[in-house]
Amino acid sequence: MTDATPVRDYIRTIPDFPHAGIMFRDVTTLFADPQGLRRCIDELVAPYRDADIDMIAGIEARGFVIGGAMADRLGAGFLPIRKAGKLPGRTISEDYALEYGQATVEVHDDAIAPGARVLLVDDLLATGGTAAAGLKLLSRLGAQVMGCAFVVDLPELGGRRILEDLGHPVHILCEFAGA
Amino acid sequence: MTDATPVRDYIRTIPDFPHAGIMFRDVTTLFADPQGLRRCIDELVAPYRDADIDMIAGIEARGFVIGGAMADRLGAGFLPIRKAGKLPGRTISEDYALEYGQATVEVHDDAIAPGARVLLVDDLLATGGTAAAGLKLLSRLGAQVMGCAFVVDLPELGGRRILEDLGHPVHILCEFAGA
Repeated sequence: MTDATPVRDYIRTIPDFPHAGIMFRDVTTLFADPQGLRRCIDELVAPYRDADIDMIAGIEARGFVIGGAMADRLGAGFLPIRKAGKLPGRTISEDYALEYGQATVEVHDDAIAPGARVLLVDDLLATGGTAAAGLKLLSRLGAQVMGCAFVVDLPELGGRRILEDLGHPVHILCEFAGA
Repeated sequence: MTDATPVRDYIRTIPDFPHAGIMFRDVTTLFADPQGLRRCIDELVAPYRDADIDMIAGIEARGFVIGGAMADRLGAGFLPIRKAGKLPGRTISEDYALEYGQATVEVHDDAIAPGARVLLVDDLLATGGTAAAGLKLLSRLGAQVMGCAFVVDLPELGGRRILEDLGHPVHILCEFAGA
């Protein structure tokens, strides 16, 4: 890996995780490499340098790694979007569908000043279900959602279209074919 | 809150979470404030600016927020220490005791080059059980552990002494009395 290595080349693929047939795109090898991590954060924040972002909302758990670094780079605060039951204060929650069953994400109900300019971030965009639920939470708190940023898109799963149809600009660093 | 507000003053306390009698020290209010987050990361990385840190090992999940930002500041990579079953590659694991029962942390078995200079980070140090398990994993991978950094210490729970007795320098930004 060199200074010129693209972000995509740092990501490894692990077949059959979490279950048979899934090609898991593993960003831990990107995060582990100092040049890879630096380039990833450089490219994630690039469109927002003059956007007066007040807060980065990161989705648990890999979205916390990039979200913490992005908030620090942009001089913003950081808001965790967490799985149910993890936040100690009063929360609001949204359910979303999984392949089998459903899951829930939560935020503190006092986490955002109304009108705050918020960017949603996560490592990977697949069907967009988690991100859409996170965006609903931000809207319910009165945030001005400035967009969504991801490291990886799996275009065949259609998440990008879902987020764009909700009216949110989407910024993604690279794509992988297949689900 | 002003530029001079200490990190400790951004942290709120929520009584009886996750169960009755616990005073939960909630760093989400620190992370949410741009000045608070900036000051927190400034103070966390201060002792390590010239320490040639290769990698920040952050403990899931709040340790990912500060760990991602610290890695970015120090030009290091980031290694997630995760709960069992979350990592897609081959892992090694360590169990540790909880108040009732036990828990497990894992890392990828190829996550660190032998001899790499690694710093372990998390938001809060209580009994030190999770941190000690994480340090064992780093040692098993051949890392050179340069120290441990936390935002909050609960000194009555004795974690600091446990980590220091293991031979690791500990850097902590503030303390709260009580468990």
